[in-house]
Amino acid sequence: MLTVLNFQSLIATKAARVCLAAENDAVIEFGLRRSQGVDGGLSAARAAYIGGCAGTSNLLAGQRFGIPVSGTQAHSWITFFETETEAFQTYGKALPNNCVFLVDTYNSIDGVHHAIDVAKQLRRDGHEMIGVRLDSGDRVALSIEARKMLDEAGFPDAKIVCSGDLDEFAIADMKRRRAKIDVWGVGTKLSTGQPDAALGGVYKLGAVRPPGEQWRYRIKLSDETAKTSCPGLLQVRRFHRPDGRFIADAIYEIDHAISEPCVIVDTQTNVRRTIAGSGVVGEAAGFPWDDNVVPCNLAIESSDLLVPIFRKGELVYRVPQIKESREYARKQLSCAPPEILKFERPHRYDVGLENSLHELRSRLISRAKEQRDRVE
Amino acid sequence: MLTVLNFQSLIATKAARVCLAAENDAVIEFGLRRSQGVDGGLSAARAAYIGGCAGTSNLLAGQRFGIPVSGTQAHSWITFFETETEAFQTYGKALPNNCVFLVDTYNSIDGVHHAIDVAKQLRRDGHEMIGVRLDSGDRVALSIEARKMLDEAGFPDAKIVCSGDLDEFAIADMKRRRAKIDVWGVGTKLSTGQPDAALGGVYKLGAVRPPGEQWRYRIKLSDETAKTSCPGLLQVRRFHRPDGRFIADAIYEIDHAISEPCVIVDTQTNVRRTIAGSGVVGEAAGFPWDDNVVPCNLAIESSDLLVPIFRKGELVYRVPQIKESREYARKQLSCAPPEILKFERPHRYDVGLENSLHELRSRLISRAKEQRDRVE
Repeated sequence: MLTVLNFQSLIATKAARVCLAAENDAVIEFGLRRSQGVDGGLSAARAAYIGGCAGTSNLLAGQRFGIPVSGTQAHSWITFFETETEAFQTYGKALPNNCVFLVDTYNSIDGVHHAIDVAKQLRRDGHEMIGVRLDSGDRVALSIEARKMLDEAGFPDAKIVCSGDLDEFAIADMKRRRAKIDVWGVGTKLSTGQPDAALGGVYKLGAVRPPGEQWRYRIKLSDETAKTSCPGLLQVRRFHRPDGRFIADAIYEIDHAISEPCVIVDTQTNVRRTIAGSGVVGEAAGFPWDDNVVPCNLAIESSDLLVPIFRKGELVYRVPQIKESREYARKQLSCAPPEILKFERPHRYDVGLENSLHELRSRLISRAKEQRDRVE
Repeated sequence: MLTVLNFQSLIATKAARVCLAAENDAVIEFGLRRSQGVDGGLSAARAAYIGGCAGTSNLLAGQRFGIPVSGTQAHSWITFFETETEAFQTYGKALPNNCVFLVDTYNSIDGVHHAIDVAKQLRRDGHEMIGVRLDSGDRVALSIEARKMLDEAGFPDAKIVCSGDLDEFAIADMKRRRAKIDVWGVGTKLSTGQPDAALGGVYKLGAVRPPGEQWRYRIKLSDETAKTSCPGLLQVRRFHRPDGRFIADAIYEIDHAISEPCVIVDTQTNVRRTIAGSGVVGEAAGFPWDDNVVPCNLAIESSDLLVPIFRKGELVYRVPQIKESREYARKQLSCAPPEILKFERPHRYDVGLENSLHELRSRLISRAKEQRDRVE
């Protein structure tokens, strides 16, 4: 379960970052050849789509998960033929309505010329090329030049696809430099999450209930506070504004009621945050929380994030369609404060333990240490 | 095919590095929970074993590939019980000959005491514990202390297993600091290759042969020399000393004979290296090659590395047992010059194009550019 959750959360997150950098351009997942195993590639394609990608070049993932498939040729297709033009023509015959010509096998500008020639032939036969793909070189300059060539040749709707060693930083940089790119094909770094190849999710036991008895809380200690586990049956309460924008998340124990106002403790820094007015609907009056209680009559709403999937071995959850998951992710991201989504010096989103849980945890830590001292 | 080759080569290489750092200690692959997909975990376990690991904690990989399986408890096992001792006792009842007690759930030193108590009970029943596992804290200091405790309690053969955020650098550092650790459990960074989550292998077409005709060479150009492909039907010749130690590798085209002496061109730097005396058996007389031809009567042998797997759709290769692959990797590594295996400032191993291939490639690059100039 950790394998599935950790990896797909990692890739959906990476995809969301890449799509954010691409602004409203389509991003296609192109990473199978570098994926960690075949199933790694399939899972990556699925997670990337949920995270915001428009499609994948992985045909099996398309078939299995209903993800739109999209792609172009390999260089080996081009070099198989005596000339680039012959390669484009043959591709055009096979897939006349699906032509994105890979133009950099010999020289990208020559390639755009050849693509235009073949696209004109296609147009005479009633077909329109989709566009061209730039895969190497200075793709900002090349895209500007290619856009001009395509427009002047009568192909203003032809798309320019860019691929080759891309990630959110490269795309953001190319956008800043005014690249004329419509679609981004992102492979290795998206499908493997580079530079973070793993998300460090763990499983720890929070409570056990012997037959006929109450729940007994459990804790795993550590010299590092962050690695000490949380006891109890945990839930996450997300506070948000009426328009949906997130304010903070509190992890709480379901048998310990959240107090009003809700106090959230950051266990790493011990900083306490207080959310006043949660549940109170009124008029917005500034940012509603700080190190101290901010008296306010702001409307703050909240909702619980965790839903049960299995109960006593039974699936009790309607498994959403992949498109629903994608739409849910999109909506959630649109509610995240923009300052936490920045690539450079992002703000921290506030997540912590609700105060009753924090106190429960502290009591269990103390009790475990006292037991130890008694033994000594 | 690239998915399989790229990823498993990456992980086998990472495993070889980790095992090198661990010197003669056993290394167990522990990474499933962070693997990139279930098949990513299986492939990683397989590749890690081939690269030198002694086993895996991945039971399915053990069953599927015949890899020795090995592991301990999770923290959730320990916290399920009221006391650590009860957890150890219950584990000991279930698997009396397979006890590696995870000791850091509450306090590692207490844990070692509890493990020793339970091991004494086991011994009275005719069983010996295998050892203890340290998973957090200052594991160098803890291992030294635990070793002392185990020895004094009459368990000099109990192993100390170390896990938690390990890689080749962490292990090398702990070895330098004289950690008393016998077995290393390496997870995330081994199974995902961190910090390199992908090996950049590509497929480019080297030649095509129309029916009844000769091979026609193919090349893909690029502004970056390293990204310009190699034409032809390629093979790799490895030169080595009579004791097997590697000297250099030359990529050559199978219809272009390797000259004597063999000149190898590094296409990135254009530096040429000459291997004199290859094929000539004589007396060893110093390092046999340099920027200039070194006249020598040294015995240099050579062998080709690539073997066909499929011919015309038929498997023409005896697929080795996984243990044979592991042994082959071990032998190959033992023949690599130690200076290229260093973690810090490793020397470069010399790999380049044999001169005839280099000339063929240069001719094809020039021809492609001339064709372009003619068109312009």
